Amino acid sequence: GDRSKYETAVRAPVAERASPDAFGLVFHVNAPLADFYGSITPSSLHYVATHRGAFVPDIDPKEHRLMIHGMVDRPLIFTMDELKRLPFVTRQHFVECAGNRAKPTQKTVQETHGLTSNAEYTGVLLSTLLKECGVQKGASWIVAEGAEEIKGAGSIPLDKAMDDSFVAYGQNGEAIRPQQGYPLRLLVPGFEGIFQIKHLRRIKVVDKFLMNYNEFGHLRPEDKELALGEQIGPKSVITYPSAGQRLPGKGFYEISGLAWSGGGAVKLVEVSTDGGKKWNKAQFKGTPQRMAHTRFGYGWNWDGNETQLLSRCTDEIGQVQPLREQLANYWNQPYDATFAVTGLDNSIQPWTIARDGSVTNGFA
Amino acid sequence: GDRSKYETAVRAPVAERASPDAFGLVFHVNAPLADFYGSITPSSLHYVATHRGAFVPDIDPKEHRLMIHGMVDRPLIFTMDELKRLPFVTRQHFVECAGNRAKPTQKTVQETHGLTSNAEYTGVLLSTLLKECGVQKGASWIVAEGAEEIKGAGSIPLDKAMDDSFVAYGQNGEAIRPQQGYPLRLLVPGFEGIFQIKHLRRIKVVDKFLMNYNEFGHLRPEDKELALGEQIGPKSVITYPSAGQRLPGKGFYEISGLAWSGGGAVKLVEVSTDGGKKWNKAQFKGTPQRMAHTRFGYGWNWDGNETQLLSRCTDEIGQVQPLREQLANYWNQPYDATFAVTGLDNSIQPWTIARDGSVTNGFA
Repeated sequence: GDRSKYETAVRAPVAERASPDAFGLVFHVNAPLADFYGSITPSSLHYVATHRGAFVPDIDPKEHRLMIHGMVDRPLIFTMDELKRLPFVTRQHFVECAGNRAKPTQKTVQETHGLTSNAEYTGVLLSTLLKECGVQKGASWIVAEGAEEIKGAGSIPLDKAMDDSFVAYGQNGEAIRPQQGYPLRLLVPGFEGIFQIKHLRRIKVVDKFLMNYNEFGHLRPEDKELALGEQIGPKSVITYPSAGQRLPGKGFYEISGLAWSGGGAVKLVEVSTDGGKKWNKAQFKGTPQRMAHTRFGYGWNWDGNETQLLSRCTDEIGQVQPLREQLANYWNQPYDATFAVTGLDNSIQPWTIARDGSVTNGFA
Repeated sequence: GDRSKYETAVRAPVAERASPDAFGLVFHVNAPLADFYGSITPSSLHYVATHRGAFVPDIDPKEHRLMIHGMVDRPLIFTMDELKRLPFVTRQHFVECAGNRAKPTQKTVQETHGLTSNAEYTGVLLSTLLKECGVQKGASWIVAEGAEEIKGAGSIPLDKAMDDSFVAYGQNGEAIRPQQGYPLRLLVPGFEGIFQIKHLRRIKVVDKFLMNYNEFGHLRPEDKELALGEQIGPKSVITYPSAGQRLPGKGFYEISGLAWSGGGAVKLVEVSTDGGKKWNKAQFKGTPQRMAHTRFGYGWNWDGNETQLLSRCTDEIGQVQPLREQLANYWNQPYDATFAVTGLDNSIQPWTIARDGSVTNGFA
């Protein structure tokens, strides 16, 4: 049941993460967003980003355990078989690296936006497990730890853990794949990628924030709270037409793209085909799910003149995707198309259509 | 991005289709339903059923064309690139072989129900293409043909073609895979598998039903109309616990299964844990989609005694999944657990739980 030999899309190393750091631990590959249809990311092409080396632990699920301890009445250890007996949820969610879009001038949508992916996950709500253990009064955070040799751990507010977080053993219908955390991954819907702990083996319930290796590079000295709550903002990007492609001539095109938000379900996507003067309501392809990629489309008749295509996402809590100028202003930085937002960059992406049909990054 | 070496589920040849027929053209493999989570079938494990040999055409999408002709004002030929410019839909649908469950006494859910699978498909509505061609007055059927050497063709009522049928180029986020009809497959939601023409290359609009190789083996002499309209009935099956598995002991289990119907979205799934005396409402894992697998769950405390588990589906148009006795009665056959319904068998599947936790087919 393999794909056709004519289908050649592959993941690509992230330019600014291509050289290993001093410890040789950085490994980031971008998903080929321009080659995707619908809302699901094929599991074999899901992006990967880690600061713990490209080595993926070889875990026998029969030997794997999840321990929950700390401020609980009954510390418990679960086998995978035990977890699979419990009430489960099946939900589509995106996972996205906070470093997505670290270099806004890159040449294709795979390079600019490829550190986000979407899948149908199946697993057990953390609230189910934590209630079984009996969370004690005064507890306010959890620390979740993976089985990597270089420990992957993250601190998550207890409220979020009890709300919609879950431990996933299924992804797109089958067991979650090793690169994505086999046999068990923590899903913290809408939070940035580092919180989605792979190879989950331990959860400790605590009464304060504990800083981990994971968080270190992601904290803003001036704004710890912001970093900790880091929820992906409202985002969208047009994948067709997108930079690196070429339109064969004027005429009708259904513009296609993805929209998502850490704030909930996407409520509205607007597309501009004239560089941002007029905004038109796009059509959802399916019902938007909470914290999940939503495919959108907008019919466009290209007259053959140069123009710019843009998309803008509004989520269910009213957050609106900003222009890059607005983002620069928010961070109190002089506006410059090449400035790299140190945290999450959720600004609107312009694609320039030339008269010959070639498509390029409006920031390049 | 491959799966773990500890995940070993594979598709299995269908017992009664294991020996090639006189022409060596029969090839059926069952999907391992007991190993799936959620609603999506992983593309690599999607069932395959053909009467045209296991050979899959090697099609270069750049060379592939879809021709629409016959009773139309403007016969048109589309390249794949042209199709991808058109307005598209993204929808989850099941595809199921009418022969699923041909032998009700088999030993596992893969064997009894493995000729059904579910995926997110992306493509262009047939109504969009047919309107572009201008369907002439008096047209009432289409004949759709695939590119196999042994021609795959099927006759579909024009009403169904104009309603919700579409030509799909995307499956689970990527290009549809060769075994599923690369680069283009006709989706006729809710109709049996033989109508979902793979490697679609030609659609002829006609004014009467034309019998094809495909339909030949599927017609009931006494009831042609039924066969032609063949829409999968309301179905469901419990995948955990299911035959071949063993429960480690009494206590809590979330019973998990799939429900679907060719009649629309699933409206209700009921589970019985006492052999059919009491029926309890199951929980949907996600919103049921039209003509798509829906994952359901029902929490059950097993007391350690022998019992039977059953599930029953009701769809949005009110069709209720029958007991096997009712089905036998409908077909005017004496009831016998081993009788093979010659057409679609959508009867309720009982799994027997023994005191030692072993699970077997209630019909075996």
